[in-house]
Amino acid sequence: MATTVITNISSLVTNDPSLGTGPLGTVQDAAVVIDGDRVAWVGASSKAPATDNRVDAGGRAVLPGFVDSHSHLVFAGDRTAEFNARMSGQSYSAGGIRTTVAATRAASDEALEANLLRHLREALRQGTTTLETKSGYGLTVEDEARALRIAAAHTDEVTYLGAHIVSPDYADDPAAYVDLVTGPMLDACVPHARWVDVFCEKGAFDGDQARTILAAGAARGLIPRVHANQLSYGPGVQLAVELDAASADHCTHLTDADVDALANGNTVATLLPGAEFSTRAPWPDARRLLDAGATVALSTDCNPGSSYTSSVPFCIALAVRDMGMTPDEAVWSATAGGAAALRRTDIGRITPGARADLSLLEAPSHVHLAYRPGVPLVSAVWRSGVREL
Amino acid sequence: MATTVITNISSLVTNDPSLGTGPLGTVQDAAVVIDGDRVAWVGASSKAPATDNRVDAGGRAVLPGFVDSHSHLVFAGDRTAEFNARMSGQSYSAGGIRTTVAATRAASDEALEANLLRHLREALRQGTTTLETKSGYGLTVEDEARALRIAAAHTDEVTYLGAHIVSPDYADDPAAYVDLVTGPMLDACVPHARWVDVFCEKGAFDGDQARTILAAGAARGLIPRVHANQLSYGPGVQLAVELDAASADHCTHLTDADVDALANGNTVATLLPGAEFSTRAPWPDARRLLDAGATVALSTDCNPGSSYTSSVPFCIALAVRDMGMTPDEAVWSATAGGAAALRRTDIGRITPGARADLSLLEAPSHVHLAYRPGVPLVSAVWRSGVREL
Repeated sequence: MATTVITNISSLVTNDPSLGTGPLGTVQDAAVVIDGDRVAWVGASSKAPATDNRVDAGGRAVLPGFVDSHSHLVFAGDRTAEFNARMSGQSYSAGGIRTTVAATRAASDEALEANLLRHLREALRQGTTTLETKSGYGLTVEDEARALRIAAAHTDEVTYLGAHIVSPDYADDPAAYVDLVTGPMLDACVPHARWVDVFCEKGAFDGDQARTILAAGAARGLIPRVHANQLSYGPGVQLAVELDAASADHCTHLTDADVDALANGNTVATLLPGAEFSTRAPWPDARRLLDAGATVALSTDCNPGSSYTSSVPFCIALAVRDMGMTPDEAVWSATAGGAAALRRTDIGRITPGARADLSLLEAPSHVHLAYRPGVPLVSAVWRSGVREL
Repeated sequence: MATTVITNISSLVTNDPSLGTGPLGTVQDAAVVIDGDRVAWVGASSKAPATDNRVDAGGRAVLPGFVDSHSHLVFAGDRTAEFNARMSGQSYSAGGIRTTVAATRAASDEALEANLLRHLREALRQGTTTLETKSGYGLTVEDEARALRIAAAHTDEVTYLGAHIVSPDYADDPAAYVDLVTGPMLDACVPHARWVDVFCEKGAFDGDQARTILAAGAARGLIPRVHANQLSYGPGVQLAVELDAASADHCTHLTDADVDALANGNTVATLLPGAEFSTRAPWPDARRLLDAGATVALSTDCNPGSSYTSSVPFCIALAVRDMGMTPDEAVWSATAGGAAALRRTDIGRITPGARADLSLLEAPSHVHLAYRPGVPLVSAVWRSGVREL
């Protein structure tokens, strides 16, 4: 296997406090050795071993590839008109999802796959090396299974979200749709997914329905995650913690009891500021969660309706400006935090044995991801040890 | 001269209502012919004439290159520590400018030029084809003239901002500094600049000082522009209109009389949301200005202290989300609006005879610049007819 050493790194984020300074385990004047698809060595640039390939970082920063643990990228169509209307004063409602459902059902497999690949490449160019994605725009047995099959061909982190909204075909009989989601649709989707998710929200699924759906998925070996407390207060977060879900996503409207539950449970709070940005909604309070001791992840929620950004750096800048996170905390949440939300220990860090997923920034420090908002700072990306950019 | 035709453009923003639909003069299924450094023809893709080179836009959007009419890019050093402190709760004050003044004075000509070029390239990759930049981090005769000489080597739009803050060397005698700025410093700077600017603000220069400085510059042929009403209410905007300045920049704190003055005068209101984003300040109210009939430009204010973004698309997304602009208005302001703020008619539009400055987006419409915040959507740029990217 080929080895590569990256030397002359001004500031290396390892996310291992034992390797460097502070909670990010930052190492100044660092080097990283990649052996095959793994990180083999991390240390001072002056002590870097010789290898086959040598890359001079030129005094720039290196950090782990972003782990975007929440996206919706198996879809067709776009919702420019809805966006324009919302920016003229209309509020966001989950109902807009139906537009994408219709377009997705009408699209060919090839079109869905091409669209997914385009967005995966776009995310990779911005430093995202692991990306979770979901079904949820099919809402029939065949269309949900198709979405997951296409997703599974291109990412390991696939989530069954038949319970995104009640299918328009079942508008008069939501209970029958829950039966479908927990019955034949689940049967068809289990082989392609690792996770089961539900949009627990007024207008989507209530707490009892969500519990039924997540339990059915868990009984088939899928691990729960929950769209929780996005548009209003509700039972989603506490249900997620009770069911030991990997993540409660959104967490925009939290009671003190919700915060306590997240702080005391194993469920990561995944914050998705792109959604609040794009729907002009109140920001989730990351500071409150961090101060309570919750684990916080930061992801894009990339989808054509409520958050059509694939940019983790943009989400970092928002989290720092509007959600009370420090730049260090936001970078941790977008790397190690995302890994925690996916229950992965092999990614989100640059430590010996970890997967060699890392980005070189056009900047001397990871702080620039917040300090230089909107600027595309990622200048090189390695994924599983392969230079992709 | 070589000619190029770009065909199969899904949506072309011309900024000439006579050429297309709406205030942006949008043409669907369009083509553009470039002859040398100029636009030679605009029309339906099906009617495009044959030329030497043919570029297929593949159903993507084309719009005029961004005109960033306000930046501060002749500087050295960075202010990461100050940014981190501000994000932990400290407020922004003009005092931080002194940090950059010290670093800039200490830097070599070569270092300043390399830093400027790095940021110009970065801006170009994001679709900016015209960029105004300023002095203001030298604050001595030699250092201000040096900054302008370096700027003038790389951009036509150069602004003398000796009156950025009172030089720390004159802290005890601001009047003497005004004498310097309007005397020997002006003498040294006039040959390199087109514009004269002043930061009219508490802690910088008051209305009387600003009037003196702008009048002195105007007497030497420099056209006024003003940093006005950024951090507080003040006389800047009305002074700008009274002196027929090309632009009043920031306009964050406006009285009704200020808005009336801008609506009834020839002075463009240049809004700089990167500054409000990066200093957590209240947003300028673009809607109020537009509804009153003022001309609005949108620029980055790129500088290492209060707005370290070079991304016009990021500013467009903020203007739409937080300043009441529609996507169409924000795109106009970042192109034709910037041109108006620089009193240029050859840029900011894609019309026969205009300079061939244009960008191809990785998107079907210019609306995606707001709909897809943070995503680097610019996939090709032509400047003066030369493909740069």
